[in-house]
Amino acid sequence: MLNRVRSAVAHLVSSGGTPSQRPKSPDLPNATSTPPAASETPKSPPARPGSVVGLPQKTTETRASFSRPTFLQLSPGGLRRADDHAGRAVQSPPDTGRRLPWSTGYAEVINAGKSRHNEDQACCEVVYVESRRSGTGTSREPTQKQGLCFYYWGLFDGHAGGGAAEMASRLLHRHIREQLKDLVEILQDPLPPPLCLPSTPGTPGFSDPSHLVSPQSCWSPQKEVTHESLVVGAIENAFQLMDEQMARERRGHQVEGGCCALVVVYLLGKMYVANAGDSRAIIIRNGEIIPMSREFTPETERQRLQLLGFLKPELLGSEFTHLEFPRRVQPKELGQRMLYRDQNMTGWAYKKIELEDLRFPLVCGEGKKARVMATIGVTRGLGDHNLKVCSSTLPIKPFLSCFPEVRVYDLTQYEHCPDDVLVLGTDGLWDVTSDCEVAATVDKVLSAHEPNDPSRYTALAQALVLGARGIPRDRGWRLPNNKLGSGDDISVFVIPLGGPGSYS
Amino acid sequence: MLNRVRSAVAHLVSSGGTPSQRPKSPDLPNATSTPPAASETPKSPPARPGSVVGLPQKTTETRASFSRPTFLQLSPGGLRRADDHAGRAVQSPPDTGRRLPWSTGYAEVINAGKSRHNEDQACCEVVYVESRRSGTGTSREPTQKQGLCFYYWGLFDGHAGGGAAEMASRLLHRHIREQLKDLVEILQDPLPPPLCLPSTPGTPGFSDPSHLVSPQSCWSPQKEVTHESLVVGAIENAFQLMDEQMARERRGHQVEGGCCALVVVYLLGKMYVANAGDSRAIIIRNGEIIPMSREFTPETERQRLQLLGFLKPELLGSEFTHLEFPRRVQPKELGQRMLYRDQNMTGWAYKKIELEDLRFPLVCGEGKKARVMATIGVTRGLGDHNLKVCSSTLPIKPFLSCFPEVRVYDLTQYEHCPDDVLVLGTDGLWDVTSDCEVAATVDKVLSAHEPNDPSRYTALAQALVLGARGIPRDRGWRLPNNKLGSGDDISVFVIPLGGPGSYS
Repeated sequence: MLNRVRSAVAHLVSSGGTPSQRPKSPDLPNATSTPPAASETPKSPPARPGSVVGLPQKTTETRASFSRPTFLQLSPGGLRRADDHAGRAVQSPPDTGRRLPWSTGYAEVINAGKSRHNEDQACCEVVYVESRRSGTGTSREPTQKQGLCFYYWGLFDGHAGGGAAEMASRLLHRHIREQLKDLVEILQDPLPPPLCLPSTPGTPGFSDPSHLVSPQSCWSPQKEVTHESLVVGAIENAFQLMDEQMARERRGHQVEGGCCALVVVYLLGKMYVANAGDSRAIIIRNGEIIPMSREFTPETERQRLQLLGFLKPELLGSEFTHLEFPRRVQPKELGQRMLYRDQNMTGWAYKKIELEDLRFPLVCGEGKKARVMATIGVTRGLGDHNLKVCSSTLPIKPFLSCFPEVRVYDLTQYEHCPDDVLVLGTDGLWDVTSDCEVAATVDKVLSAHEPNDPSRYTALAQALVLGARGIPRDRGWRLPNNKLGSGDDISVFVIPLGGPGSYS
Repeated sequence: MLNRVRSAVAHLVSSGGTPSQRPKSPDLPNATSTPPAASETPKSPPARPGSVVGLPQKTTETRASFSRPTFLQLSPGGLRRADDHAGRAVQSPPDTGRRLPWSTGYAEVINAGKSRHNEDQACCEVVYVESRRSGTGTSREPTQKQGLCFYYWGLFDGHAGGGAAEMASRLLHRHIREQLKDLVEILQDPLPPPLCLPSTPGTPGFSDPSHLVSPQSCWSPQKEVTHESLVVGAIENAFQLMDEQMARERRGHQVEGGCCALVVVYLLGKMYVANAGDSRAIIIRNGEIIPMSREFTPETERQRLQLLGFLKPELLGSEFTHLEFPRRVQPKELGQRMLYRDQNMTGWAYKKIELEDLRFPLVCGEGKKARVMATIGVTRGLGDHNLKVCSSTLPIKPFLSCFPEVRVYDLTQYEHCPDDVLVLGTDGLWDVTSDCEVAATVDKVLSAHEPNDPSRYTALAQALVLGARGIPRDRGWRLPNNKLGSGDDISVFVIPLGGPGSYS
């Protein structure tokens, strides 16, 4: 993420360590996990917002400061090449190794020097979810449907250090798994979800399935809750619990900075695309572009930020004003009338400048230069618990939200062809590439490969990364039109929509 | 507005007076206003949010409790017929009198008995805006462009009494006019709006036009503000100032209850559609439906309401919880796990029921039965300053917003034919009529009239109201499909998009 956090906060970033491969941790599953043995299932109380359950309360090893996704299978030499800002070699999983699930394509490239290491991280997993109830034999249909699998892709774009992105890439899908454990039977039952469950699993009473309260047994009118909205809720809570874990562990384990998170969960026929930050997901289907996310920036979230500053002025100290002005107000302009807008307005009006309007605006700047509290350019993501306004003790985190927006795409509603793909990219891609240009590259690259060639999605991911990076010329990385390419870290997943097994 | 405020708050509604026509007030302009004499222009400081300017600080007469729009030109006998719940005669301006601007069509009908009088109100005006600067000869082009005209249509759907709707129908366009007075020269100048104005009009310094700060003279980077966004800001602030005036005058002048407000301002080639409440505006253009508003209800604004309750728990007392549950939690369910969602979630998850979850949910119910604090079914509008939770001192107003969403439609971007219309309706129309059904009626009625027949839009408005009301049959008002028609007040404007003068 290029310049997302101003250099003003550089003192918050711990110095990078020597490049070294991330130690293989016992809690890091292989790219394709098999159902874990029962003993691996954490014995824990059920999920409640505000607490982490079923996950280690502390990670047990100190993280190295530089790592790349394990599915890249980089040798020490390959890791050095991936870390070379001068060459900026595009990295993909080796053609000879095990393919990613669904023959997913992946490519990445390091930035042009804006940070010591590539602060993007990526994860691609098949995750098995064992029912929390299966240990007690209390499922609604106790003899079958003991577990669920979901496919998972995640891009994490770090800022002010790589720790948060690295931690999220390693653990967020495990939080999602924990949240889904309570839902294994419910999601496989065609009946609507029960309104309430009799008590917590593992406690007396839970073993009696007759206590399950079905919607029909409730006397009062009630809302219908879909299976889909339970998965959405599980992902939302998993983001929150991941963020809380980062807050707890930030000191001891180098959870530096924060990260945007864009993840995809494929479960029971549906793709859940969850985005917190300024990465982007689009589907290209039969040449048509279907947006699957929106970006969360100081501009797109201006009114939410201003409302929070208005309702909780103590968060602004005496340094910031929640009002927005087209530029910084000058002391000599006191008494004049300047354009402004507040948290309730989308339009602009004039107001007489008063003393407190001279404070720095909570939201300022435009486009990639927009900032919250003059510091950070994204408004959703994980981490950033240490982030403070420069030369101040004001924390920025209260304005940042860890909650994603989740969009759902039902794969069963459409017959997909091999050229239909979901493209995920960090802002390094989208800063210099439009949705239409991505669609054109999809068409160009995939039509040059046989439909059953499993390497075509990797070739596409590479083409997208190369197209955004450009080539070195005239003292910079330049695109064919001679404009500057992206100097940011760039990471891209290309997920074919044929579904599990169709093309792999 | 049918049953929008539960009978629980009936004690807040003052008893209705004897039906009588609204006294013609000196501050009520004729349907088509001419530019006022200079002496009518209030001498006042410029607009600032938080204060009313250029408007009488108090209305000077006591309002009668029942009135209909003056443009209906109702005789005392006609007024009695309009107030008859049994007959429910459809009312329109007389065919023989002066037509509404643009040959606008209008029709209304009273409710089937849910309130003593029709609580909808309507307004249609041509409003002349004189520059606040013109009195001092300080416009940027002082010899010309002294004033602006805007066309104005407003529907106000009252609840818990007709006072707020009546007051808004009489004064909201005047607040808009006041807000626009500062912008008369700016909106007519092709240059971008000046970032700041040197001081307040009427004070020393303002008479020197060289003090006008143009965007080019500012050294720091700044946002570009469009003319359009200034009009949007003027309308937004006018809504707020109207609401503040209601708060001030609520005691002395029978400003009972509150109202939804849907207004259209046509100014310099653009339609500004501002909606606060659950009325709706759609454009039918060449048979295509273009939504021009969205409804604000406890369901559509759930997350805003919950966030406010979460950040300001004192607003909930000890009676409400900001969490949402699919139905009211029962004491016997303590310790069980129930579906819930909080202000950050769009999905649902299970949580263990604790003592404070037994409180009444801030947002409950579905569809037309959704309520904030078990009381009110709309979340934006004007008034409601007296509204309290039943048997409680908790005010509801902090959760209601007076700010509209403003959508802009550029009339110059499309060649409109006589069958292209903007339809405004209170929820009495939309509760039983879909957008597509309205489009079908538009097609049917307009094709049965000559394109140059100025009565065709009134005929269309009448057809829409009749189609929503139905006919008396089987102990109720019934539609042709035998479903119940709307028992609510129903009011409809049909505005042809040909622009001023095209068809009038």
